[in-house]
Amino acid sequence: MITTANIKNGVNVDQLVETIEHVQAQPELAKFKFRAKNNWINGGHCVSSIKSFYGVGAEDTSRQETFTMECSHPNVLLGEDEAATPPEVLLHSLGSCLTGAMVYHAAANGATIESASSSLEGGCDLHGFLGLDPEVRMGFDGITFKLKVKSDASVEQLENFAKFSPVFDMITNPTPISIEIVKD
Amino acid sequence: MITTANIKNGVNVDQLVETIEHVQAQPELAKFKFRAKNNWINGGHCVSSIKSFYGVGAEDTSRQETFTMECSHPNVLLGEDEAATPPEVLLHSLGSCLTGAMVYHAAANGATIESASSSLEGGCDLHGFLGLDPEVRMGFDGITFKLKVKSDASVEQLENFAKFSPVFDMITNPTPISIEIVKD
Repeated sequence: MITTANIKNGVNVDQLVETIEHVQAQPELAKFKFRAKNNWINGGHCVSSIKSFYGVGAEDTSRQETFTMECSHPNVLLGEDEAATPPEVLLHSLGSCLTGAMVYHAAANGATIESASSSLEGGCDLHGFLGLDPEVRMGFDGITFKLKVKSDASVEQLENFAKFSPVFDMITNPTPISIEIVKD
Repeated sequence: MITTANIKNGVNVDQLVETIEHVQAQPELAKFKFRAKNNWINGGHCVSSIKSFYGVGAEDTSRQETFTMECSHPNVLLGEDEAATPPEVLLHSLGSCLTGAMVYHAAANGATIESASSSLEGGCDLHGFLGLDPEVRMGFDGITFKLKVKSDASVEQLENFAKFSPVFDMITNPTPISIEIVKD
């Protein structure tokens, strides 16, 4: 008998079901730790490298590649525009996470995603960052995520799937950040 | 007379002071809108393109390059590991933003940053994402940012400078996200 993997939306549903079963049997397998190392180059220009993570009960050994990525600032924000700004990169992270969460949960629920594309926008007021007005926040006052999707699921189902996104959770709800600074 | 630009930590302090003066004279110049376009490839693999933004009272025309970046997932999270995961990219955005904010505000306050490098880590429990336990959040339950910095400023000053970071604000404080889904 030839068996083929049960793939839906590019997601191996058999492996997804196995993952859920493993996590239910051994809850500690569900704990993950993700990391990044960041190096300052100059001004508002930084580079990060990302490789190691902890998950499924151990330090990962499967990832071969170290992913590197930069942030910078355009000329009007006193940079040389070598890369996208940190808030733009946050939008990339958010759009990818909302889309990925929708695709995985659609697969788990038997819904097909044929195509998906989105645009994200966040607005801010530099009075916050520049310290000119303590009433104005530093970050975006809000973000819009507009998604066009071809699917047999309803808009309501798709929105509920997307909202399993970890990054959506981290931006809409407070996430504590501890800062430890050591002088070199 | 030869005049040289007043550069500190790679930041043009004269231009920074001018920016503050312009914003104080015309507050609407401080409003910025940043954007990303995201396209789903397959499974948890997406690609974003980032170029246009609004700021200083107009749509930007200075940025020549479109920045593209991907997100994916490692094998244990059912992906092909073509790129970092969205939560890892969020750590990159956060580390770059905290560092950049520290560098800019140090420059504005006459403090020197000679070097800066950091490591970030966030922990999560897949019971949240998988929908197995509504008490467990989808995102990181907390993030640590450990920064090593060579500077004439005190640790307390450096921490206060870093906390002007827009991405730090967006993760530690709730930021509303509106989701609009249209069927294609």
